[in-house]
Amino acid sequence: MQALLDNLRQLIGAQHVLTDGDLSAYEHDWRKRSRGKSLAVVRPGNTAEVAAVVKACAVTGVSIVPQGGNTGLVVGSTPDDSGTQIVLSLQRMHAVRAVDAANLTMTVEAGCILQSLQETAANAGFLFPLSLGAEGSCTIGGNLSTNAGGTQVLRYGNARELCLGLEVVTAHGEIWSGLSGLRKDNTGYDLRNLFVGSEGTLGIITAATMKLYPQPAAQLTAWAAVPSLEDAVTLLGLAHQHLGAGLTGFEVMGQFALSLVAKHYPQQRVPLYQDTPWCVLLENSDNESETHARTQFESLLELALEQGCVTDAVVAENLAQAHALWHVRESISLAQAEEGLNIKHDISIPVSRIPEFVRSTDALLQANIPGVRLVNFGHLGDGNLHYNVQAPAEGDPAQFLRAQEERVNTLVFDAVIAHGGSISAEHGVGSLKVGHLEHYKSPVALEMMRGIKQALDPQNLMNPGRVVQVGNAGF
Amino acid sequence: MQALLDNLRQLIGAQHVLTDGDLSAYEHDWRKRSRGKSLAVVRPGNTAEVAAVVKACAVTGVSIVPQGGNTGLVVGSTPDDSGTQIVLSLQRMHAVRAVDAANLTMTVEAGCILQSLQETAANAGFLFPLSLGAEGSCTIGGNLSTNAGGTQVLRYGNARELCLGLEVVTAHGEIWSGLSGLRKDNTGYDLRNLFVGSEGTLGIITAATMKLYPQPAAQLTAWAAVPSLEDAVTLLGLAHQHLGAGLTGFEVMGQFALSLVAKHYPQQRVPLYQDTPWCVLLENSDNESETHARTQFESLLELALEQGCVTDAVVAENLAQAHALWHVRESISLAQAEEGLNIKHDISIPVSRIPEFVRSTDALLQANIPGVRLVNFGHLGDGNLHYNVQAPAEGDPAQFLRAQEERVNTLVFDAVIAHGGSISAEHGVGSLKVGHLEHYKSPVALEMMRGIKQALDPQNLMNPGRVVQVGNAGF
Repeated sequence: MQALLDNLRQLIGAQHVLTDGDLSAYEHDWRKRSRGKSLAVVRPGNTAEVAAVVKACAVTGVSIVPQGGNTGLVVGSTPDDSGTQIVLSLQRMHAVRAVDAANLTMTVEAGCILQSLQETAANAGFLFPLSLGAEGSCTIGGNLSTNAGGTQVLRYGNARELCLGLEVVTAHGEIWSGLSGLRKDNTGYDLRNLFVGSEGTLGIITAATMKLYPQPAAQLTAWAAVPSLEDAVTLLGLAHQHLGAGLTGFEVMGQFALSLVAKHYPQQRVPLYQDTPWCVLLENSDNESETHARTQFESLLELALEQGCVTDAVVAENLAQAHALWHVRESISLAQAEEGLNIKHDISIPVSRIPEFVRSTDALLQANIPGVRLVNFGHLGDGNLHYNVQAPAEGDPAQFLRAQEERVNTLVFDAVIAHGGSISAEHGVGSLKVGHLEHYKSPVALEMMRGIKQALDPQNLMNPGRVVQVGNAGF
Repeated sequence: MQALLDNLRQLIGAQHVLTDGDLSAYEHDWRKRSRGKSLAVVRPGNTAEVAAVVKACAVTGVSIVPQGGNTGLVVGSTPDDSGTQIVLSLQRMHAVRAVDAANLTMTVEAGCILQSLQETAANAGFLFPLSLGAEGSCTIGGNLSTNAGGTQVLRYGNARELCLGLEVVTAHGEIWSGLSGLRKDNTGYDLRNLFVGSEGTLGIITAATMKLYPQPAAQLTAWAAVPSLEDAVTLLGLAHQHLGAGLTGFEVMGQFALSLVAKHYPQQRVPLYQDTPWCVLLENSDNESETHARTQFESLLELALEQGCVTDAVVAENLAQAHALWHVRESISLAQAEEGLNIKHDISIPVSRIPEFVRSTDALLQANIPGVRLVNFGHLGDGNLHYNVQAPAEGDPAQFLRAQEERVNTLVFDAVIAHGGSISAEHGVGSLKVGHLEHYKSPVALEMMRGIKQALDPQNLMNPGRVVQVGNAGF
């Protein structure tokens, strides 16, 4: 171990191999569910150094936990508590290697902060549409490794759909130079998409070529009261038809979720929620003008009011009002935390089956666990719900969680699978859900995943125990 | 062998195991470059039968060539000439299993003809945007196996981007039920995209869930004369900015390519080409109205004329005129065939580098091969050129091809790689380009591909010798 540390210090400089002091930023996960202990935190400065580190670890059989901004929600980027794994942080690799305006691409290193890439694109006159809560600290390498989602997926897709090429250091310490600004390339297996979403278990993403889009001329936000989830789905269909690709956001929020925002953040104005079980936030991005966007939006909402799938609606008059509406949506998680402990689920269901899923699963939980409160909200346009379960108003919530979390998860996940859904829509697997995957994922798929893992990482040194279990994992 | 045939007859019915008569439709490739001989053509009727056939073949070590419409251009779906491979045709599996309007998806079997799926979507009020020359006979299973492109990729992506889930029979004869109408699912490695584009070498796609889109309210076509390829790239940028997602087509055509259409099809009116080196065909799809589409198009073209990147332009007045313009574009390949033998390339280059690539590669070829004529056209919006080389006007073209094809390919492919491009943009690898891949693809990528192939098809029975070479391939 000491020989490896000496070797790593030689390879990338002693100041970039951290073994002393407070390393909790690297060793504890974002939600503080897991506190690990690493052999060292290693911070290479370029791709060749990453390759050298991986080779050195491969020779000594030391496993590697790649890490970006360490903002993941499923415990996928922190070491176990053995003190034998190294954390390989990509933070020092944050160069923008190229912006190619005519090709609508930028090539960036894995450690670039998401928000800085949004700014890089904007400065060049373009939109980089990936956007999510942690954008001020998460990195594009982490976004790609976890196939991050966020609020613009409806129009632009996940991180996966925004990526055209990758540079990867393999588990053998070889460099695959797969950076590409090509929108069409049919020369063999899709290695890019295999690494995207593999959470560092097959190799380390060191750089990527990402798509850029024209900036919209205007972006408007509306808020609508809908009588039921069926009506929300009808409104979604109308919005697709009338706004086409202009529809860049469609978020649904249940009355109880909104009431928590009103209760805990009384300075926020939460529109329309008191008289309706559900509200919808819509965003329309227009490449022409604000006037055109407003006309389009108003004619959509008039039609929806006529048809009865919307009972009331407002369109933000200006940017401040639009931000205030989005702020309500984004405050739900925090309001929920203010209300107390809860059990979170990040699930997806085919859009058409969401109303029935929510009705039957709400009833199931309420029948099995009296007093349980359901905080429903999410990206309805993507079929992605944050279907969260709040402890009953009376009693000790910590005691509730201890007693009920596993049972609640089983009820919810069983219902998700019965409705053709996924138990992890956008947060990934990490070590938090790897056991659930063994239970809920098709055995044929798991067997193929294990085969691929063994083919590309035969020593099981790349983020072992995450995503897929092979042999003896550390978790 | 006889025992296997008897077994297959038992499993799926004797009338679906073809061994006699004219099997050339299954054994000869579309472009008649390869004439193989199969042990039998096997036509299972459902997924369980496909699985049973694969298991029977796996036990006896007989390799399988999966086949859809057999319209591929790279010899990827016909048997070798050994008489020991079976062709597994998916043609009998052509059911549309479900259309889910609220989820914007349809689930279809692999043998569905592409055009029939376009019609299924239209009948339900939606657009299924995959569109290509062979759509009347190619199948969706083949489209997915080869990650087909076509004319709508600019807006909607390749077959890959239109697919949400797959049902696959693995090389072990197991069924992976990965059909999914989910837009977000982060539960493990991206097996879907691994099978898409793998040309039947990892398993057999038996069904897929595909995306549907709202039908546009209007679709307009324009034709513009541009002074140079640089100007075409500038026009593309303006079109992205002004039309946003409305830009659904952007095709470039060189003067010589258009002159061949005018020469061989004098009844067609080819606009504007005589006074300009390049023409561009643009398509604008609008979710509002034809009036709006026309206003948008005209303001774009006015701006382009002002800026000088367009010297003249026409917008089709009606559907008939629009079809006539597209017909000119689609007649280039046929006109080229009328002119005589030629060497075809299906390449992609980052859009920004295409002008320099064409200038330098044209010059290189003309310097090395006097009299050579270049037929340049393609999907500029995707960076995809059909960069074809026509024999000199004088001399024997067959003799030219025999003498020069390999040299021309080397010159072109070397230039493609030097410009960061791909030697197969949308047609795939098959057996035609598998040798080129060994030479031009990164050894690290090839090694990973071989590892994946061996992990998922350890006996090398699935379409051996295509895409990736492992052990002793049949080609």
